[in-house]
Amino acid sequence: MKFGTSNIVLLLFLMFLSISFVLTSKKFKHKPCKHLFLYFHDIIYNGKNAANATSAIVSAPEGANQTILAGQFHFKNVALCDDPITLDNNLHSPSVGKAQGLCIYNTQNTYTAWLGFMFVLNNTDYQDTINFIGADPLMIKTRDISVVGGTGDFFMHRGIATLMTDAFEGKVNFRLNVAIKIL
Amino acid sequence: MKFGTSNIVLLLFLMFLSISFVLTSKKFKHKPCKHLFLYFHDIIYNGKNAANATSAIVSAPEGANQTILAGQFHFKNVALCDDPITLDNNLHSPSVGKAQGLCIYNTQNTYTAWLGFMFVLNNTDYQDTINFIGADPLMIKTRDISVVGGTGDFFMHRGIATLMTDAFEGKVNFRLNVAIKIL
Amino acid sequence: MKFGTSNIVLLLFLMFLSISFVLTSKKFKHKPCKHLFLYFHDIIYNGKNAANATSAIVSAPEGANQTILAGQFHFKNVALCDDPITLDNNLHSPSVGKAQGLCIYNTQNTYTAWLGFMFVLNNTDYQDTINFIGADPLMIKTRDISVVGGTGDFFMHRGIATLMTDAFEGKVNFRLNVAIKIL
Repeated sequence: MKFGTSNIVLLLFLMFLSISFVLTSKKFKHKPCKHLFLYFHDIIYNGKNAANATSAIVSAPEGANQTILAGQFHFKNVALCDDPITLDNNLHSPSVGKAQGLCIYNTQNTYTAWLGFMFVLNNTDYQDTINFIGADPLMIKTRDISVVGGTGDFFMHRGIATLMTDAFEGKVNFRLNVAIKIL
Repeated sequence: MKFGTSNIVLLLFLMFLSISFVLTSKKFKHKPCKHLFLYFHDIIYNGKNAANATSAIVSAPEGANQTILAGQFHFKNVALCDDPITLDNNLHSPSVGKAQGLCIYNTQNTYTAWLGFMFVLNNTDYQDTINFIGADPLMIKTRDISVVGGTGDFFMHRGIATLMTDAFEGKVNFRLNVAIKIL
Repeated sequence: MKFGTSNIVLLLFLMFLSISFVLTSKKFKHKPCKHLFLYFHDIIYNGKNAANATSAIVSAPEGANQTILAGQFHFKNVALCDDPITLDNNLHSPSVGKAQGLCIYNTQNTYTAWLGFMFVLNNTDYQDTINFIGADPLMIKTRDISVVGGTGDFFMHRGIATLMTDAFEGKVNFRLNVAIKIL
C-alpha cells in the first residue's frame, strides 16, 4: 500500500483538527462564563414599616426583642429576607425575582454575617434559582461569596458573587448590588 | 533516517488512538449519573404528637408560639427536621437514613421556604451524606433544589433534586418524594 | 508541494506534543489537591464566660433558655459560632482566621448537628473563605463534611473536610481539628 506524501499531510491535519475540535468544544462547553449584574433591596422590619418591609429578625439575644437589631454588632441576631431583585437601582422597577434566605450576625467585634440565600428568578416555564453561601463583612466595600449551585438555567453552575452596598438609609433600608460570575 | 510511508501511517493511528483514548476515558469518568428515588416523612410537632413528631419549630414571629406554624404563610417560622427516609411511600418501612436540616419560611405572600438540609444515609463503614440547598415553593408540584456536595459514596457529587409532595394530612403530616440526579 | 519523510515525522511529533501538552496541563490544573490542617476552638457561652465565649445559643426549645444547651441531645438548639482558627492546638496561638456560622442540633435520639459554616482566613489583599456544609454526628470520631465553595485563594474549590474533636472540657470548651482536602 502506498500513500502520496501530500495525502499523508492531509490525513495528519484532519486528525489534528478532529482532536483539536474535541478539545476546543470541551473548552467551549465550560468557557462561556455568565455574568449577571443585579440589585436587591433589603428593608428590615422595624416595628413601623410592616407594609413594605422585606426582611425580619427571627432570633435575637436573650432579653432583646425581635424588632430592632441588637447592639454589639447585631451579634446573635438571625434575620431572614424576601427582597425584590431589580435590573437597576430603583426599588420600584419591575422585580425580576426574589432574594430569599438567611443572614446570621455571628461576630462580636465587627459587623460580619454568614449568608445562606438564593435568587429565585421569575420564569413561568421552570424554576431558575442561584444558591449562595458565604461571609458578608459589611464594612468592606466588595465582599465575595460563593455560588454553590443552581437550578433551571443555572443547573450545575458554580462561581462567585461580589456584593456591594450601593446605598443605605438609617439602619433599615439597604440597596445591594451583586455581580455574579458563574460557569 | 528513513521511514516507510506505511509505517508513518501506522504511527499516526497509534498516536490518534492514544489521544482519543485519553479523551474518551475522561468523558466516561464523568458520565455515569447516579439516580436515587427516595421518600421522606415529615411530621411537624403540634403540641400533641411528641411521640412521633420528626420536625419542630425553633423560631417564630414575636408573640407567636413555637408549637403551631404561624399564619401569614408561616412567615418568620424556622423549623428543623429529623425525618426518616424510606425506599417506598410507607412511613413504617425500614428507614435507610435521615433527612436533617433547616426549613425557613421566608415569604410574606405565598408558601416558600429556603431549605438547607442533608440526607444522612445508613452505612456502617463510613458516612454517606448528600447536601441540599434550595428554594421550596410548596404550592408548585415539582420543585428543584441543588445538590451542593456530599461525603462517602457521594464525595464531590453535585446535581439536582426534584421534590414532590406525595401526600399530606392536615398541616402536620407530609410525605415527600425526591428524585436525585447527581454526577 | 513535497515534504521529506523525516519532516513529516517531525511535524507529527510536534502536533502530538502540542495536544499532549493541552491534555496534561488540563489534568495538572485539577490535580494539585490542597491539604490544610487546622484547629478551631469553640467556647460556648454559659452565662459566666462572656469574656472569652466564642459561640452562643440563639434558639432554644420553648420553655428552655438560651444560656444552657437543652437536654434531650440539645434537640432544637441553634447555635452560632465565631471561633478562632489556629495552626496548632493552642488556643493562645496567633489566630489565622475565624470559623463562623451555624450549628443546628436536629436529632432527638443522638447528638448530631447540621453545620453550615465557613472559614474566613486572614488576608489583607482579598478575602479567602472556605464554605462548609454537612452532618456532624458528634459521637463519631471522624466526621466528614462537604466543602461546597470558596472565595479568594479557594475560588471554585470543592472537596471534603474531616472534623475530629481533639479535646473537650465540660460541656463548654471544645477544640476541633479539621483536615481539609480540596481541589
